[in-house]
Amino acid sequence: MPNTFGHLFRITTWGESHGKGVGVVVDGCPSNIPLTESDIQKELDRRRPGQSKITTQRKEKDIAEILSGTFNGMTLGTPILILVRNEDARPEAYAEMEHIYRPSHADYTYQIKYGIRNWQGGGRASARETVGRVAGGAVGGKLLEVLYPSLEVIAWVSEVHGVKSFCDPNKITKETIESNILRWPDSENFDNALKEVEKAQKEGDTVGGVIDCVVRGMPPGLGEPVFDKLEADLAKAMLSLPASKGFEIGSGFQAARMRGSEHNDPFYMEGKRVRTYTNWSGGVQGGISNGENLFFRVAFKPVATLAKEQKTVTVDGEEVLLRARGRHDPCVLPRAVPIVEAMTKLVLADHALRQKVLDCRP
Amino acid sequence: MPNTFGHLFRITTWGESHGKGVGVVVDGCPSNIPLTESDIQKELDRRRPGQSKITTQRKEKDIAEILSGTFNGMTLGTPILILVRNEDARPEAYAEMEHIYRPSHADYTYQIKYGIRNWQGGGRASARETVGRVAGGAVGGKLLEVLYPSLEVIAWVSEVHGVKSFCDPNKITKETIESNILRWPDSENFDNALKEVEKAQKEGDTVGGVIDCVVRGMPPGLGEPVFDKLEADLAKAMLSLPASKGFEIGSGFQAARMRGSEHNDPFYMEGKRVRTYTNWSGGVQGGISNGENLFFRVAFKPVATLAKEQKTVTVDGEEVLLRARGRHDPCVLPRAVPIVEAMTKLVLADHALRQKVLDCRP
Amino acid sequence: MPNTFGHLFRITTWGESHGKGVGVVVDGCPSNIPLTESDIQKELDRRRPGQSKITTQRKEKDIAEILSGTFNGMTLGTPILILVRNEDARPEAYAEMEHIYRPSHADYTYQIKYGIRNWQGGGRASARETVGRVAGGAVGGKLLEVLYPSLEVIAWVSEVHGVKSFCDPNKITKETIESNILRWPDSENFDNALKEVEKAQKEGDTVGGVIDCVVRGMPPGLGEPVFDKLEADLAKAMLSLPASKGFEIGSGFQAARMRGSEHNDPFYMEGKRVRTYTNWSGGVQGGISNGENLFFRVAFKPVATLAKEQKTVTVDGEEVLLRARGRHDPCVLPRAVPIVEAMTKLVLADHALRQKVLDCRP
Amino acid sequence: MPNTFGHLFRITTWGESHGKGVGVVVDGCPSNIPLTESDIQKELDRRRPGQSKITTQRKEKDIAEILSGTFNGMTLGTPILILVRNEDARPEAYAEMEHIYRPSHADYTYQIKYGIRNWQGGGRASARETVGRVAGGAVGGKLLEVLYPSLEVIAWVSEVHGVKSFCDPNKITKETIESNILRWPDSENFDNALKEVEKAQKEGDTVGGVIDCVVRGMPPGLGEPVFDKLEADLAKAMLSLPASKGFEIGSGFQAARMRGSEHNDPFYMEGKRVRTYTNWSGGVQGGISNGENLFFRVAFKPVATLAKEQKTVTVDGEEVLLRARGRHDPCVLPRAVPIVEAMTKLVLADHALRQKVLDCRP
Repeated sequence: MPNTFGHLFRITTWGESHGKGVGVVVDGCPSNIPLTESDIQKELDRRRPGQSKITTQRKEKDIAEILSGTFNGMTLGTPILILVRNEDARPEAYAEMEHIYRPSHADYTYQIKYGIRNWQGGGRASARETVGRVAGGAVGGKLLEVLYPSLEVIAWVSEVHGVKSFCDPNKITKETIESNILRWPDSENFDNALKEVEKAQKEGDTVGGVIDCVVRGMPPGLGEPVFDKLEADLAKAMLSLPASKGFEIGSGFQAARMRGSEHNDPFYMEGKRVRTYTNWSGGVQGGISNGENLFFRVAFKPVATLAKEQKTVTVDGEEVLLRARGRHDPCVLPRAVPIVEAMTKLVLADHALRQKVLDCRP
Repeated sequence: MPNTFGHLFRITTWGESHGKGVGVVVDGCPSNIPLTESDIQKELDRRRPGQSKITTQRKEKDIAEILSGTFNGMTLGTPILILVRNEDARPEAYAEMEHIYRPSHADYTYQIKYGIRNWQGGGRASARETVGRVAGGAVGGKLLEVLYPSLEVIAWVSEVHGVKSFCDPNKITKETIESNILRWPDSENFDNALKEVEKAQKEGDTVGGVIDCVVRGMPPGLGEPVFDKLEADLAKAMLSLPASKGFEIGSGFQAARMRGSEHNDPFYMEGKRVRTYTNWSGGVQGGISNGENLFFRVAFKPVATLAKEQKTVTVDGEEVLLRARGRHDPCVLPRAVPIVEAMTKLVLADHALRQKVLDCRP
Repeated sequence: MPNTFGHLFRITTWGESHGKGVGVVVDGCPSNIPLTESDIQKELDRRRPGQSKITTQRKEKDIAEILSGTFNGMTLGTPILILVRNEDARPEAYAEMEHIYRPSHADYTYQIKYGIRNWQGGGRASARETVGRVAGGAVGGKLLEVLYPSLEVIAWVSEVHGVKSFCDPNKITKETIESNILRWPDSENFDNALKEVEKAQKEGDTVGGVIDCVVRGMPPGLGEPVFDKLEADLAKAMLSLPASKGFEIGSGFQAARMRGSEHNDPFYMEGKRVRTYTNWSGGVQGGISNGENLFFRVAFKPVATLAKEQKTVTVDGEEVLLRARGRHDPCVLPRAVPIVEAMTKLVLADHALRQKVLDCRP
Repeated sequence: MPNTFGHLFRITTWGESHGKGVGVVVDGCPSNIPLTESDIQKELDRRRPGQSKITTQRKEKDIAEILSGTFNGMTLGTPILILVRNEDARPEAYAEMEHIYRPSHADYTYQIKYGIRNWQGGGRASARETVGRVAGGAVGGKLLEVLYPSLEVIAWVSEVHGVKSFCDPNKITKETIESNILRWPDSENFDNALKEVEKAQKEGDTVGGVIDCVVRGMPPGLGEPVFDKLEADLAKAMLSLPASKGFEIGSGFQAARMRGSEHNDPFYMEGKRVRTYTNWSGGVQGGISNGENLFFRVAFKPVATLAKEQKTVTVDGEEVLLRARGRHDPCVLPRAVPIVEAMTKLVLADHALRQKVLDCRP
């Protein structure tokens, strides 16, 4: 249902961008998983506004408080409520939004769907909602650490306004990605990419891009055939992110230009382990992980809020020009990296639990 | 859950490719919707094997029988069970699959997930499972006809092994698409596209491609913000299809190369209706339809079963060479068109019912 | 959702009483569980009409056909479709029901809810719907046999129209219960009970009663606290049965007349196992099984269809007298015994799988 | 799933009795429903500890804070987070519970289920969890006011340790029930009932009882046939309450002693409205409301925590004697009245939304 994600490992996010706070209830997390507030804070800090000159300057410390579900640093198996109070909400900056629909925002669609909207800063349609996802993903990550100690989820910005990065998904490290404000894996093209962002920022404009994500140390057998294929749940997770427009697993759209004899991943044995020579599949076959690295990509559109003048209409049907105020990112990609990772962990944590149900062998 | 799709309008498909039959239970369809077996048969006939020289020659008439849920040609509001018996199952053609994993098939992943598999023809991983989806989508289509008489869902093959078609999604007709065996909208490039398929077929190989889909006459307000965004549910629907590898809504991956000032869709008034000048959004904003045409694309990999020799391994970990037998499509795209449409209708029918819940205004 | 029961081990029943057939889809059953049609038939035969002189004389052999989900006598982990064709449907016997609401039947409420109903024999409100439950429960029973080999579910008729049976739930056997047409555990009061049924039958009337159920060999730890307490899911399961009016676990309504010092079940050690001296709890504490016998009771009203004349109204709002035709049980209790057992197995199978998710200890 | 109740109108409660706080997320509430904190506070005050001499003396003001989901006193259609901080938690009073299982409490079953428990005051098994239910029920109540202005949900204590009250469910008022500390409808027997409670309290003992509940102004058509019958969902709701042991709808267990000719509720016309002369059905037929008053009863066991010495065991398997400390109710019934009402409203709000889906007539 709309604000809940996952079947067995489930999060429900809540909170409006300019209300009292945002957060998440994590339900279905098994007991006896180590979990403290710092596990969550670490990830929230990567998502936080104001972390660099190319992110929104809204001042939110985003301090996570766990109100339930843990005891002496371990999960109880009961719902985990994580609360982040809003501090730097400035609803007055949005006064004109009460009457005007911002182009390519959710203002109009919320109004027509609900007949009411919190016009102060986007409400639930704001990227601020992803605080709850990142907090929930941090809990999912702790569960995965217990279940699969060698599993790693790593995302990075692979494209910004046409500038592409190059890296080997089998080797890229978190350290490399965290070493720069773009979360860019490739020192060669870094300056060009940054230039695109800064140029847009200076012009009151914004740019889109692509995030790549790899999961190494994947166990085989995760994902369910038919509707809840691993790639289907990942696609849903990613297309549920604000501003995302596309998803590819493995070969993605490139598959459309290939023949079966090229695209098939031949099997071989590595000791007792079944491996594939290539990985066009992106780590899944028939919707189920095959133990190779999971690899997928997510396209993001440029942020819709611009300082440039745009044509739009009012709630009363009058055509007007709008130059948006408020504090916004010129490029959502760097802050979206921990969000993509969080959603990935949520999908994997859920499917890890689902797989535990299946095995009835004595 | 794995074999169920939808929250309020729900289908559960069942059946193995070479078992006794396949089908679907549709639950949650409101009462008093006109529905007969011919409504379903019409769509199944578009999906049926053997419909042209470029599809598998398996002989299945795919006759749909409604066993419950209707009375005098109207739905009762109770579960609708639709059964299609398998007729031309030839499990013996798959005898060697008991011991060998076909590359880029689900043989290995099913075995490791379940510890057992019906190795006769792919079981649930076979495209034959989509009979239930198409039957369920036909029911969803009948509901949509009642709720939104002017809504149209039209898909077509827009790319085959690098050959692209051109058409205007705002004007393309079902008649044009159904007029040729490729479900190709564009007479100019048709021969080139067909040549790609036939060449692959002759060489025992297969080709991938892309399907585009448009929904015209969309009501605004469908889709739920946060996790069940309309594009998120569409992405899941499409990535749950056998052989799909990518999904784009509106601008898709192209958005990564755009600026906000280009990508934003400015609003204007068309009489009392709010419209946008462009439609890079693909008909959704904040996960909710805005009344413009819904537009998305799905990438499909080439079919994995080849007549060419490939490297693989046995269930006992022996490396072997395999030249697959069985009857298969050289290109899954033309038969995937009605399946993409069916999944689209299922997503829309579900969200249409979900929207009915929200309105409590007197 | 309405026609689906269970979270992980799920059944969806379908079919109308006088349509083409009835049945069930079982989804979520793990793979590698032994299952054949005779496992299901055995339970259906206990539910079948016409099995004795005190049941309806409708002639249904109720032959179960498994259409999917098994392979060589084992479950595949995929949906199991079980179909029972209706054979002795006589819709013409119900012709007058098109216009008249039978008192204390679902005719009126279906009509007002759906604006349409299959008036031929009660549709989904008929006890015939329970064919799917019994078939699904048989699958659940096979899973429980694998998970908990010493677990036993035994139900019996404990009261008929005020005549009560006496037996020790810790010792009663299936053989005793199956040895008579009332499924009555107590030879002493059997004749009195049977007399009540036969007297009602002769007078065109019907009688109510109570079914008791015990589960022996219960593992501790099943059931989830808060909303999905084991007794809450059992209560829902039982109150979802046609004609049921009440549910008690352990002490039940008797608890209202007790003090805590009487009602508490003191703990003691039996070797390494924690036991309780008494079992007023009925085997659950805080919604979770404690390893003692589960014990609960279900009240059933007398069957609503009578051969006696009754006051009622037509669909057009005319007051009329009705003397119902059709073939009906004078007392639903004996045939409800396998249905109560089936629902119990479904609840336990579901909670058994749910418990598997929780344990993440290495 | 365990901490979530409802399909369309859903609450998820969270929080441990002696943790930082307790509360609820309400998801699925339509937009534009009037809602303020005082709507919630009003109901929480009826549930609050320390409200009279016969309730626990724990000092909790139970102040509700709405953190999300409303705007200018109206619901937004987004999740509503309600937080109540714990103030008078005294975990030290429970120190011995770390090692000892209290008889007929959830200490043992939680430990065996989760391998860990918050032993400070019962955690989620404490009646304190019901704060979230009452807050959620208050929201449900506001929705029902909009949908069915004349609907009333009224519960009362109908039995305490064998002393019964008498009242006419068709006439009893909230004022009468709220006028005394027992929430007892009947002045005649009030003193006897109170004496039972006070006597138990003085002796360090506790007593059980029964709560009756009526819903007047019921619309016909609520409840779904088969598994989600209105009485099935009510039974689950009630058996999910701490200490509840039984449920009856309409005639309940009395039905077992009746004949069909007595039990059937004959129909008649009251103007254009279909009515029944009697109401043994309790307002439901075939699981669907028929427009008559809904009437059901819930049995509660005596509170398990006693000041009397009891036999029990430690977590290490040692047999010991326990005299419990802590602050507890001698009789849970008066405070359970608003909880029963809250759960009833949640069931009705959910089914009211479910019914909105069905109607597709133009």
